[in-house]
Amino acid sequence: MMPTAVTLREAADWLSTREDVAVLCHQSPDGDTLGSAAALVRALHKCGKRAALFCADTIAPRFSFLFDGIEKQAFEPKTVVAVDVADEALLGKLRAQYEGKIELCIDHHPSNRHYAGRYFVDAKAAATCEILVEFLPMLGVPLDRAMAIDLYTGLATDTGCFQYVNVTPKTLRTGAQLLELGVPAPQINHAMFGTKSRARLSLEALAIEKIEYFHDGEIAVAPVTLEMRRQTNATDDDTDGVASIPRSIEGVRIGITLKEKAEDLVKVSLRCPPPYNASEICAQFGGGGHPGAAGCALHCGLEEAKQKLVAAAAQYLEAHA
Amino acid sequence: MMPTAVTLREAADWLSTREDVAVLCHQSPDGDTLGSAAALVRALHKCGKRAALFCADTIAPRFSFLFDGIEKQAFEPKTVVAVDVADEALLGKLRAQYEGKIELCIDHHPSNRHYAGRYFVDAKAAATCEILVEFLPMLGVPLDRAMAIDLYTGLATDTGCFQYVNVTPKTLRTGAQLLELGVPAPQINHAMFGTKSRARLSLEALAIEKIEYFHDGEIAVAPVTLEMRRQTNATDDDTDGVASIPRSIEGVRIGITLKEKAEDLVKVSLRCPPPYNASEICAQFGGGGHPGAAGCALHCGLEEAKQKLVAAAAQYLEAHA
Repeated sequence: MMPTAVTLREAADWLSTREDVAVLCHQSPDGDTLGSAAALVRALHKCGKRAALFCADTIAPRFSFLFDGIEKQAFEPKTVVAVDVADEALLGKLRAQYEGKIELCIDHHPSNRHYAGRYFVDAKAAATCEILVEFLPMLGVPLDRAMAIDLYTGLATDTGCFQYVNVTPKTLRTGAQLLELGVPAPQINHAMFGTKSRARLSLEALAIEKIEYFHDGEIAVAPVTLEMRRQTNATDDDTDGVASIPRSIEGVRIGITLKEKAEDLVKVSLRCPPPYNASEICAQFGGGGHPGAAGCALHCGLEEAKQKLVAAAAQYLEAHA
Repeated sequence: MMPTAVTLREAADWLSTREDVAVLCHQSPDGDTLGSAAALVRALHKCGKRAALFCADTIAPRFSFLFDGIEKQAFEPKTVVAVDVADEALLGKLRAQYEGKIELCIDHHPSNRHYAGRYFVDAKAAATCEILVEFLPMLGVPLDRAMAIDLYTGLATDTGCFQYVNVTPKTLRTGAQLLELGVPAPQINHAMFGTKSRARLSLEALAIEKIEYFHDGEIAVAPVTLEMRRQTNATDDDTDGVASIPRSIEGVRIGITLKEKAEDLVKVSLRCPPPYNASEICAQFGGGGHPGAAGCALHCGLEEAKQKLVAAAAQYLEAHA
């Protein structure tokens, strides 16, 4: 079918008629894609359907509580749904298997490529989990505490605990609704925001020491090299925290983190405050994301990636001065 | 008068009959006492009354936006109100002038001493600002954007941006209500939570690299040496952030930060989660504080201080195993 925008109600009515559902997450899974998928699987199970979550990459142990009590079911999927997946390319190694077969996508990324048979994309939602708080009850099952824990986690992690520019009055009211279902928010917040592995902390310290400043201190670049990862035994997940550091430095307007994935592959994370738009800068390199946080990948070495990104960021700042 | 508990409505009706109001903050002022006082002064001005804010200590520059556009008025106070002040002792050097003269206190601290003629204390409120969102409209003036900015700041700072155990569904709904009045929350959040000086960040990185672990990784010790401060040009204020780091590491139960103040003086900051009590350990060295965070000072070198604190912490953990 031609990809078609649907309402949440239409999506729910359609999904209610389907069986044996594969729920796909994006690669390098975060709290929002995992929380969304886990809550959707729970809701489908409650509807008496078989459902399971699939993700290209290993799920970090700190997210394992999202799946507490979900029954593992083996079945041949007849229906494929993606949550929080802006682009089929983000399915990672699941792409080959599922490309062109995704029948429903629910997402909040403005950069969503509308690749699914039916798609509901609300770019004003702070998290896909915010959308699912409305969507899941439309399947005919009320939200329970376990779903609320999953959905709260996605809402909190995608907003830096209600701190980022994507937070709306609705986001906070959705949080209130989830707390009322008995979510142990302080424990989740501590696990998500208040705890770091030794490896993560050491990696951050190494990256901080290598931060370079450009454009009168308005651009800060933090490198995460393969060598730093080896030295600290940091996992992919451990590298995530670095991305928020350059942007947090006084006077910095554009914070750039360069993760060396291979000798000729650098993943870039770019953060900036309003009125700047991180995704516009990343779009120049084939990437995308949100105004406050975006990413792209460059097939070159770290030094070349740095020069290209700094040049693009400086040009952007001058164009928006 | 004998101190009397009043309802918010009674407090508002009484305050509406009064003129020339001094609004008192607590010493070492934080976002909640300043945001509450600033919003109350704005509301009283809108009611056509003279009102001004008083605080014993200098207000940090990062809070100056709370007072944007408040007219400075000189008058002899006829009415004294305290906001977010649990105890007259917390008035600092204003105490002598105002002790026994405070006619209304609005507060959320469970430890409030009920010293004021009329008091409204709601210990379930996450912040005094949460109470004022209800209270100010009772004075007959609707909340405006400037008041909402003040109140949001107090709500956010007292909850670690909606992260701490004091956050209730009402807290989040109050936040939503304030956002709807046009609060530039991302900018406020960034200024309150998201910004670090280069010196602070560099100091933290140096301290992290020198963290040592003891007692099977349950005790972590971070040093802040005079040399590190010289190297990074860090101020006293810049060293504050280090104290929260050791405790945030996975597996750590007691986090210790040792600040070398002179060759023979070490200030100790100790953090631990329930059921442990940081102040019990610090009491052994003549210090004190709260269960979660306490401090003490040792007149010795850094290495000796480390050995003493680690020994005391290990003994404490074994006694409470």
